[in-house]
Amino acid sequence: MSTAQPFVELAEIEAARSAIAATVRRTPVNKSPSLSELLGCPVHLKLEHTQITGSFKLRGATNAVASLSDADKQRGVAGVSTGNHGRGLAHAAKAAGVRCIICMSRLVPQAKIDGIKAQGAEVRIVGNSQDEAQLEVDRLVDEDGLTMIPPFDHRAIIAGQGTLGLELLEQVPDVATVLVPLSGGGLVSGVAAALKAMRPDVRIIGISMERGPAMHECLKAGGPVLVKELATLADSLGGGIGLGNQLTFAMTRDLVDDVVLVSEAEIAAGIRHIYWQERQIVEGAGAVGVAALLSRKIESVGPVAAILSGGNIDMKQHHRVISGEDVDVTQEAA
Amino acid sequence: MSTAQPFVELAEIEAARSAIAATVRRTPVNKSPSLSELLGCPVHLKLEHTQITGSFKLRGATNAVASLSDADKQRGVAGVSTGNHGRGLAHAAKAAGVRCIICMSRLVPQAKIDGIKAQGAEVRIVGNSQDEAQLEVDRLVDEDGLTMIPPFDHRAIIAGQGTLGLELLEQVPDVATVLVPLSGGGLVSGVAAALKAMRPDVRIIGISMERGPAMHECLKAGGPVLVKELATLADSLGGGIGLGNQLTFAMTRDLVDDVVLVSEAEIAAGIRHIYWQERQIVEGAGAVGVAALLSRKIESVGPVAAILSGGNIDMKQHHRVISGEDVDVTQEAA
Repeated sequence: MSTAQPFVELAEIEAARSAIAATVRRTPVNKSPSLSELLGCPVHLKLEHTQITGSFKLRGATNAVASLSDADKQRGVAGVSTGNHGRGLAHAAKAAGVRCIICMSRLVPQAKIDGIKAQGAEVRIVGNSQDEAQLEVDRLVDEDGLTMIPPFDHRAIIAGQGTLGLELLEQVPDVATVLVPLSGGGLVSGVAAALKAMRPDVRIIGISMERGPAMHECLKAGGPVLVKELATLADSLGGGIGLGNQLTFAMTRDLVDDVVLVSEAEIAAGIRHIYWQERQIVEGAGAVGVAALLSRKIESVGPVAAILSGGNIDMKQHHRVISGEDVDVTQEAA
Repeated sequence: MSTAQPFVELAEIEAARSAIAATVRRTPVNKSPSLSELLGCPVHLKLEHTQITGSFKLRGATNAVASLSDADKQRGVAGVSTGNHGRGLAHAAKAAGVRCIICMSRLVPQAKIDGIKAQGAEVRIVGNSQDEAQLEVDRLVDEDGLTMIPPFDHRAIIAGQGTLGLELLEQVPDVATVLVPLSGGGLVSGVAAALKAMRPDVRIIGISMERGPAMHECLKAGGPVLVKELATLADSLGGGIGLGNQLTFAMTRDLVDDVVLVSEAEIAAGIRHIYWQERQIVEGAGAVGVAALLSRKIESVGPVAAILSGGNIDMKQHHRVISGEDVDVTQEAA
C-alpha cells in the first residue's frame, strides 16, 4: 500500500513558476467569438498546444528536472512515455543539460521514436511491451542511478502543471469555470491547487473521453482501480492512474468540482471547430473542453476557460477529421 | 512632392517596444526540423500570425496610437483598411480607449466588416469605392479632428513593426538571413532598421508575390510608381506604396539586401507545408518566406528566420489549399 502525501500547495506551484520561467512558454489566451456567442458568456481558450513540445507536459517535466539534486542531474533521468510526457521530459532534460533515456518496446511506431529523438533524448528499444520497457527503466534506476520521472503522480510534476493555472488567472482574472483535459490527473490537480488557493469559487471541471476514462472510473469506485484502455481520438488521455496512486487521485477527488465525458463524435466536432473557427490545430486530447462546450454539457453563468493541449496529432488524421470524413478509431486494436 | 524624412532609428524602435509591451504579444519562434533539413542550416519560424488580431500590424498600430497627444486621443483615429491594418488599428484603439472609425465602401464583403467590428471599431459604409471611403476619412480628419493612421508609411508604424526585429534577435541571436513579407515596406523597414543597427551583417530579404509586387517595381523604377494590383493568394501584400512615399521606399532601397518573388503555386506550397509540417495556419502573405525557401530561391550559409504573418485566411480557401486542390485566384476579378 502506498502512503498518501499531503496535497501540492500554492507555494510549490509558485516556486515551480520561477524554476521553469526561463525555458517554458507563457502561452497566450484567445477569446473565442463563436463559442462566446453559443454559450452566452465569454469563452477563453488557453492555447497550451503552442507550448514548446506541443503540450503542457513540458511544465511538469522541466520542474521535475530542476528539482533534482546536482548529483542526480549528473546521473540523468529516464522514463517510458512515448507521447507528450516523453517529449516534454526529453526536451526539459536537454535544456538542463541532463542525460535522458526513454525506453520503448519494439512495437512503438517509428514516428513516435523519431518524435522523442528529435527532442534530444536517447531512445532504448527493449522487449515487446511497455512493461518490459519499464523493467529497463527500473534497471537504469537501480544499477546506473538514473531518476525515473513519472508522468503525473509526482509533486514536482503536479506543481509544474499548476503554473498553467497561475498564468490563466492573470490572463482571465474573472474566470468562473475552467475546463481541463483529464487523464492521470496531473494537470487538473496542479491547476485546481493553484486556482482553489487563490479563487476558491472557481469551478474546475475535468474532461475525459467516454472510452476508458480512468480517473472517472476510479472516482466512482472510491479509489484507484484498473480501467481498460480503449482506442480513442483522445489517445493522450488513455492509460490508468496507477494502483499505488499517491497524489492525483485524492487531489482530483477533493479539488475538482465535476468530471464530464465526451464521445468520439464530440471530440471530432471539437477538433473541427478548433480548426475552422479558432484557426488552431489540436489533437483529440486538446479538443475535449471545446467538445464538451459544443455539446452543451457545461453549464456556466460566468466566463469559461478551456485548456487546449496538446497539438501532437497525426496530421493525416487531423485532415480527415476537419474534412468531415468519418474517423472511427474505435475499430482499431485498443 | 513629398519631402524625404530621416530613417527610423533604433532608439525609436526601442521606445516603441516599451510603448506596446503591455498589450502586444511577444510571439514565439519555432525551429522547423523539415526546413532545416532541406536547407542544410537551421531554419526558424517567427510565429507572428499568432499575434493578437492575427498579424504584425497590431505592433505599428499600437505604437501609432500610443504616440498621439492626449488631445488627439480624445478625438480618435480613422482609417480605410479592411484587412490586417484595419484589424490591428481597431484593436489598438480599443485597447487604449480611443475612438476608431474605419470607413469602407458598400462593396466590402460582410465578413470583412464583421472582422473589423469584432475588434471594436465603428464602421462607416460610404460610397462605392475605396477612394470614396478615403474621402470620408479626410472629412473626419478635417471636420472632426480625428487622426488618420496610415498602414505603413509612417514613423510610429515602422518603429512598431521594428519591435519584431528586436524580439527575433533575442530569440535567434545567431540569425544570418531574415525573410520578411514585403508589401508597402512598413514591416521590412522596421525590421531592417532594428537588425542592421545591431547586427549589420544580417541579410534582410523581402519576399513578395510575382503578381503585383509594388515595392519591387518601384525599386526597379528608382522611385514610387503606380503598380497594377492583381488577384493573388497573398492578397494582404497587394496595393501600392503611395506616390508620395516618404519613408518605406528609401528605407527598403537602402536597408534591404534583396527582394525575392514567389509564384501562386509556390505560395500554395508554402501554406500546405506550414499546415502539414509546421502545424500552423497562415494566409498567403504569411507563407511567402517558406514558399521562397521551399523553391530554393534563398541561398544561406547560416541560420535563417522567416516571419509568418498573418493568419487571417478564409478557411475554405485554406482547406482547399492544404487538400491539394487547384486554387487559382488569378481568374477572379482583380
